[in-house]
Amino acid sequence: MSEPLHPAPAPAVPGPVPGRHLGIIGGGQLARMMLGPAIELGLETTVLATSPTESAAAVAGQVQIGRHDDEAAVRQLAREVDALTFDHEHVPAEILQALVAEGLGTPRPGPSALIHAQDKLVMRRRLTELGHPCPRWWHITSREDLANALADAGSSLVVKTPRGGYDAHGVRIVKSAGEADDWLAAHRELLAEELVPFTRELSAQVARRPGGQTAAYPVVQSVQREGVCYEVVAPAPGLDQASQQRIQQLARDIADDLDVVGMLAVELFETADGRVLVNELAMRPHNTGHWSMDGAVTGQFEQHVRAVADLPLGAVDPVAPAAVMVNLLGSTAEDLVPGMEAALAADPELKVHLYGKAVRPGRKIGHVTLIGQDTDELLQRAHRAEQLIIHGPGAGTDETTTTAATSTEESL
Amino acid sequence: MSEPLHPAPAPAVPGPVPGRHLGIIGGGQLARMMLGPAIELGLETTVLATSPTESAAAVAGQVQIGRHDDEAAVRQLAREVDALTFDHEHVPAEILQALVAEGLGTPRPGPSALIHAQDKLVMRRRLTELGHPCPRWWHITSREDLANALADAGSSLVVKTPRGGYDAHGVRIVKSAGEADDWLAAHRELLAEELVPFTRELSAQVARRPGGQTAAYPVVQSVQREGVCYEVVAPAPGLDQASQQRIQQLARDIADDLDVVGMLAVELFETADGRVLVNELAMRPHNTGHWSMDGAVTGQFEQHVRAVADLPLGAVDPVAPAAVMVNLLGSTAEDLVPGMEAALAADPELKVHLYGKAVRPGRKIGHVTLIGQDTDELLQRAHRAEQLIIHGPGAGTDETTTTAATSTEESL
Repeated sequence: MSEPLHPAPAPAVPGPVPGRHLGIIGGGQLARMMLGPAIELGLETTVLATSPTESAAAVAGQVQIGRHDDEAAVRQLAREVDALTFDHEHVPAEILQALVAEGLGTPRPGPSALIHAQDKLVMRRRLTELGHPCPRWWHITSREDLANALADAGSSLVVKTPRGGYDAHGVRIVKSAGEADDWLAAHRELLAEELVPFTRELSAQVARRPGGQTAAYPVVQSVQREGVCYEVVAPAPGLDQASQQRIQQLARDIADDLDVVGMLAVELFETADGRVLVNELAMRPHNTGHWSMDGAVTGQFEQHVRAVADLPLGAVDPVAPAAVMVNLLGSTAEDLVPGMEAALAADPELKVHLYGKAVRPGRKIGHVTLIGQDTDELLQRAHRAEQLIIHGPGAGTDETTTTAATSTEESL
Repeated sequence: MSEPLHPAPAPAVPGPVPGRHLGIIGGGQLARMMLGPAIELGLETTVLATSPTESAAAVAGQVQIGRHDDEAAVRQLAREVDALTFDHEHVPAEILQALVAEGLGTPRPGPSALIHAQDKLVMRRRLTELGHPCPRWWHITSREDLANALADAGSSLVVKTPRGGYDAHGVRIVKSAGEADDWLAAHRELLAEELVPFTRELSAQVARRPGGQTAAYPVVQSVQREGVCYEVVAPAPGLDQASQQRIQQLARDIADDLDVVGMLAVELFETADGRVLVNELAMRPHNTGHWSMDGAVTGQFEQHVRAVADLPLGAVDPVAPAAVMVNLLGSTAEDLVPGMEAALAADPELKVHLYGKAVRPGRKIGHVTLIGQDTDELLQRAHRAEQLIIHGPGAGTDETTTTAATSTEESL
C-alpha cells in the first residue's frame, strides 16, 4: 500500500462493540452519500432532516424530521442510535455537550473536537497554540482592533464570522476598518486573517477511529470558484513525496491533537516558498474528498461510516494514477437527466453523482469523477460532462462567466 | 478500454426520456445492492417486498409491502414507476404480459425475454433453435421419456424442474427412471440434461440497454459449493483472448436474440476440449458479477440500474489486474459484526458487503471482494476474511466440511 494506515496504540482491554446504528444529523448530500456505504456494511442509519424532501431524507430508509438545533429532536435521535455523526457543523455545541454528559448518543466527532470546525476563532487559537502553521490572524472585537490589524497587515484583510459560515458565506475582504461594522454589531467578535499570497490550494483528508487509528488520503489540489469548491485533482500534481508526507502528517497531528473521530479535511494554502498554511477544517466527508468515492479502495463516505461505527479503517490507495472531481453547480438546466444521459453516452468511464436537489444557480447539485492516467485529459472530459449536465445537452459549450475566487471558504 | 461497448444501431428518432423512478420487484440482496447506485445517479426507487424486514426493504427509502405473484400488488407498483425490474425471476409471466398489454410499468427485462430465465425448458428449446451451445437435453413428460433419455445418455442425468428452482433447489441427479416420479407428478414436465464433464464453470455478464447497446464484462471463473456460488475470480484465469471474446460474443448474442434489458448472466461449463456450453441464464445482477461492485469502473448493480432506466451503459474495465469474490454463507456466527471487525482489521483492502439477513446455515448473508495483482493471494485473503466473518473472530480457521458440488444450479 502506498499510504500505510497508522495503528492506534494497543488497547489494554478489548474495544467496545462497534456501533451498528448510526444517527446522521442533517439531510444534505453528505448524509446522502453515507447511505450506500452504510447499507453495504450492514449498518443501520437514521437521518435527522428538516424536511422529507431533503437530499438524504428523500432516499434514506429511516428518517426523523426535526432541526439540528432543536435539542429535543437531537436527543430523540440520540436515544435510538449507537453513535451520532454529522452532515454539517451547525449542531450547537451545548446540545452535544449535554448528550455527552449524559452518556447519550456518542457524537463522533465529539463536541470538544467539533468546536474547532464550528468556531474559526477557537480553531485559530488552538492550532496556533499547537504550533500548526496558520496565516497571521487577529481577534477582532472592535473597529479599533480591525484598524490596528489592517495597519499591521498592510492594505487588506480577510474577515470571517467565527460561526455559521459555509462556502462563500461569512467571509469578506476589507480594506478599511469600517467595513465590518455590521458584522461586529451582529457577532460581537470576528476573525481577521492575512490575505495569503498562495500559489494553489491543497486539501488533506485523514480518517480517525476512536482509539486513534488514522488513515491519510493522498493530498489533493482544489480549485475554488466564487468561493465554492469547483475542481479537485488527486493526487496534487507535482507535489513531491516529502511534502506529501509532511502534509499528511500535519493532518494526522491535527486529528490526534483535536481528538477527531471520522473524516477530517484540512484545507491548505500552498505558498511560493513551499510552505502550507491551514485555511479551514471540516470534520466530516468533504467536497475535496469526493474523488475517493470512485478513485480509492475505500471512499471517504465508507471511511467516515467505518470510523463513526468504530470499525477498522480501510485502505486509502488510489485505484488509478490520477482522479479528478468536478462539482455540478446549478445553472440553466432545471432537469439534469437529459444532460446526464448525454454525458454518460459521451464518456462511458464517467461517474455521475446527483444529490436529488432542486436546481438553483450556483447550488451544489452533484459532482462527476473520472479516474485514469492523465490529469489534464481527465479534467477536460469532466468539464465537458459538467457542461452537458448543468446546461443540458442542447446548450452550447461556452462556460459561464467566472470571477476571482475568494478562496477562503468552507466547502460543503 | 479493454472491453469496448457495442453501440446500438442509430435510432431514427430520439429515444424516450430515461425512466427516473424504478420499481424493483423483490426485496432480497440484489434489490438492496441496486439502491446505492440508484441513489448516486439521482434515480428514485420503490421496492416491492413481502416484509419490511427483508434485505432491501429494511434500508430502502420507498417500500411497498406485497407479493411478487400478487397481480394487484405488482400492478400498484407498476402504476407509480417508469420502469419495473426484478430481484429474482419468480414474477408470473401472465402478470407481466398483462402489464405490457396495457402499457403499464415497462418491465425490464420484458416478459418475452424473462421467460427464458423463468422456464428452463423454454430456455433450452430457444437456445437450441438459435444454435447456441447447450448440453444434450431431453423434454421429459413421463417415466418412459426419462428411461429413454437415460438409455441415450448413459448412466445418469441431471433432472430439473423447469420453474421455481434456485441455487440447489429443483435440481437432482438420477440414475434410474423412477427417481423423478414425484417431480413428474408435481410438475407434469421436466428437463433432463447430460452430466457435462466440465473442467470448470465460467460466467459471462453482459448488460443491454433498450435499443440494443451492450457492454460485456470480462468472463469470470466461478466455483460452486453444495450448489451455491461460493467463489469467483475475474478475469477467468488462463482464458485466452480469443476464447474470452468468443464467450463475450455468445453472451451478447443471447442478450440480443432474447431482447434482454438489464444485466444478463450466462453461466457456462467449460469442457476439456475448450468448448463452452450454456448452463443457466439469469436476467438481473448475478452472484458471479458481484466482483464488479469494487473491481470494475461500472459495477453490475449500477449497470443494471442504468440499463433499466434507459441510460447509457458504463465502462466495464477492471480497475485492477485481478479481482475475487467469496460468498459469506451462514455458519456458526449469529452476529456478523465482530467477525467483520476482525476481518477489516486484518485486511484494510477488504470490501465487505452484508445483506442484513438473519443467519441460517448455508444462507447467503453477504460477500467479500478484493482487487489486486495475484489471484491466489487474493483468494487466500478473501477466504481468511470469510472464515472470520461467518465463524466469528474467536473461532478457529478450520473450514466447514464441503461436499461435491452439483454445479448445475442457478445462483442468486
